Amino acid sequence: MSKPSSDRLAARAPATSRYDTVRLSHGSGGKLTLELIEELFVATFSSAPLEELNDAAVLANPGGRIALATDSHTVKPTFFPGGDIGRLAVAGTVNDLAVMGATPAYMSVAFLLEEGYDMAELERVVRSMKHTADEAGVAIVAGDTKVLGRGHGDGIFINTTGVGFIPDEVNLGVGVVRPGDKVLVNGTLGDHGIAVMSRREGLDLSVELESDVAPLNGLIAAVRRAAPNVRFMRDLTRGGLAAVANEVVRRQAFGLRVFDARVPMNELVEQYSEMLGIDPMLAANEGKVMVIVAPDEAEAALTAMRAHQYGRRAAIIGDIVRRPEGVALVETAYGSRRVLEMPIEEQLPRIC
Amino acid sequence: MSKPSSDRLAARAPATSRYDTVRLSHGSGGKLTLELIEELFVATFSSAPLEELNDAAVLANPGGRIALATDSHTVKPTFFPGGDIGRLAVAGTVNDLAVMGATPAYMSVAFLLEEGYDMAELERVVRSMKHTADEAGVAIVAGDTKVLGRGHGDGIFINTTGVGFIPDEVNLGVGVVRPGDKVLVNGTLGDHGIAVMSRREGLDLSVELESDVAPLNGLIAAVRRAAPNVRFMRDLTRGGLAAVANEVVRRQAFGLRVFDARVPMNELVEQYSEMLGIDPMLAANEGKVMVIVAPDEAEAALTAMRAHQYGRRAAIIGDIVRRPEGVALVETAYGSRRVLEMPIEEQLPRIC
Repeated sequence: MSKPSSDRLAARAPATSRYDTVRLSHGSGGKLTLELIEELFVATFSSAPLEELNDAAVLANPGGRIALATDSHTVKPTFFPGGDIGRLAVAGTVNDLAVMGATPAYMSVAFLLEEGYDMAELERVVRSMKHTADEAGVAIVAGDTKVLGRGHGDGIFINTTGVGFIPDEVNLGVGVVRPGDKVLVNGTLGDHGIAVMSRREGLDLSVELESDVAPLNGLIAAVRRAAPNVRFMRDLTRGGLAAVANEVVRRQAFGLRVFDARVPMNELVEQYSEMLGIDPMLAANEGKVMVIVAPDEAEAALTAMRAHQYGRRAAIIGDIVRRPEGVALVETAYGSRRVLEMPIEEQLPRIC
Repeated sequence: MSKPSSDRLAARAPATSRYDTVRLSHGSGGKLTLELIEELFVATFSSAPLEELNDAAVLANPGGRIALATDSHTVKPTFFPGGDIGRLAVAGTVNDLAVMGATPAYMSVAFLLEEGYDMAELERVVRSMKHTADEAGVAIVAGDTKVLGRGHGDGIFINTTGVGFIPDEVNLGVGVVRPGDKVLVNGTLGDHGIAVMSRREGLDLSVELESDVAPLNGLIAAVRRAAPNVRFMRDLTRGGLAAVANEVVRRQAFGLRVFDARVPMNELVEQYSEMLGIDPMLAANEGKVMVIVAPDEAEAALTAMRAHQYGRRAAIIGDIVRRPEGVALVETAYGSRRVLEMPIEEQLPRIC
C-alpha cells in the first residue's frame, strides 16, 4: 500500500482560528458559527455550492438512479496509524456508494463538536477530509456544525452522507449471485481494526501496523470495467469478512465458502490479533471490498485489482456453493470446515 | 396551530425490543444491530429501499436539480411541549429543502445513541419521525446507528440528511431580491426557542407554551402557487428572525426593514421571553419561514399562508429598502429605529 497521505496531514499545524478551542458559540448559528464555517469549512472544502451558504446545496443532476448512503464516525483515537477520523468518514461513505455500483458525486458533512475540542486538530481533520474527497473525486457541498457542552460529547463526531448516480444498466445484488461464482477481496484483512485496537490498548509494538483506510471507488470502477458481470460488492467494515459473508448467504439458497489459506493477511495482524484475542476475519477494514463475480471473469477482476494501488495483495478467497444453504464456511488447508459466525457482541467498539 | 400529533405519540409505550436500554452491541454491526435495524427502524420507517439493508439506498431520480441538506439534532429535553427531537429532525431538514424551492423526496437518518438510552423512548422518537415524514411526504430510505459508551454521548443525537428536486424554472435567492419587495412570516415568532427554554429552566408556568415544530413544505408549495415571484425563503431556526434578516442583507445593496408592531407574537412568548431575558426575535423557530415576495404578490402569498394550518397568523412584517444598505432594521410604531443585530453568543444552547 502506498504511504497514506494523512501522515503528512497529521503534522501539527497552528490553528488559523482566533480561538484555540471550540466554543459553544461556534455552534449557535451566530457570528462565530459563520466565522468557523467560512474560514475553515468553506475555505478548505472549497466547492461552489458550499460557498453559497444556503440551507440546502443546489446540485447538477446527471441522471441515473440515485444512491444515498449515510454514516456517523466516532473513532477513538481520532488519529491512528495510517489515517484519521476525517479520511475514514469520507472514504467510508464513498465506499458505501461505490459498492452499490454508483459513481460518488456529492457529500454532506455534519460535525458534532464538544466544547473545548482542539481547533488545530479540527483543522487537521478537515484538511484530511478534503484530501480524501479530492482523491475520490467527490465534492463536499453541504454541512452542519453543532457544539455540545463539555462532557456531553466526546471530542468529535462526524456524519457523512453521500449521493451517487447509478447507470441504468447496472444490476448488482445478492439476487444475481449464483453457485460457482468466485469471491475476491482486494487485499489483507483486519488491518484497520487491529491497528486501531493495538494503538488504543497501548500494545508495545516493534513495528506499527497501519490502517487500510482508503476510498475504493477507483479500484471498483477498474474491476467493473474488467469484469462486467460483477454480481455483488460490499466493503468489509464493521464485523469484517464474517459480517459480509453472512449477509450474502442470509435467507439464500446457496452458501459461501472461504479457503482459509487464501485469505491475505498481514503478518503483524496475525500476531497482534492473537495478542488482542480478536479474530481478524471479524475485524473491521476501511479499504477492503468483497467482490463476487461470474467464474469466467474472476481472473480479469483479480488482475484489475492487483494493478490498482489499493489492490496489490488481492486474492480469490472462495466461492459460492450449493450446500450448505444459508451458511458461510471457512475451509482449512486440511479440508476441515468451520462456520464463519456472525459477530454477536461488541468486539471492537468505536473503531469506525 | 392544530394540536401537534407528537403529544399522542409521547404516550409511554412498552419497548418491543427484548432490551430495555440501548447496549453497545446495538451499534457494533453484529446480530443485535441487525435486530434493532429490522425490528425498529425498518419496521417503523417501512420504505422499500430501507428494507433492502444495502450500504446505500437506490432511488428513483425524477430529474431537476438536486437539493441536499444536512442537520444534526441534539435538543434537550428530548420531548418538549408541542414536539420532540424526532419531529424536529425530520421537519428541520424538510424545511431546509423546501425553502430552496425543492420538493423534498428522500431522507437518511443517522443515530448516535448513548449506551443505556431508554429503548421505549427511542421507539417513541422513531415513531414521531415516521409520522412527520409521512406528513411531509418524504421517504426515509437510508440509516446508520452507532452506540457511544456511557458518558461519551448524551442520550440521543440524530442527523437527518435530505434530498429534494428543484424544477428547472425555479429561481430563488438573495440575488433576485429588489427594493420594494415585501417580507412575510407565516406566524408567531419565538415559540420553539422559548417553549424549550422555559421547560428546561423549570419556569413555573400557568399555561404551557408549545413549540411550533412542523414540516412547512406543504405551506411553501401553496405560497409558491399563489405567488410565482417569490424571491427568497428561509426557515427561521437558530438565531431566529435576526439571523435570517442579517443573512439576507449581508453584502447586498439594500436593507431589510421590520415593523415591530406587525411581527406576530404569542402573548406567552412575550411574557416568558422577558422572564428568561431572551429577545424573541433572536429565538429559534421550527415551523416558521420568512418569505420575500414581489410587492404585487404579497397579498396573494399572505392569503395562501393564512389558508394553511401552519400559517393562520401569517403577516407581512416588513419590506426591502434601498437604505441603509446591508443592514436589518426594526422600526417601532413611533418611527424610531434600531439595528436588528446578528446574535453573537450562544443564547439558546441545544434547542434544535
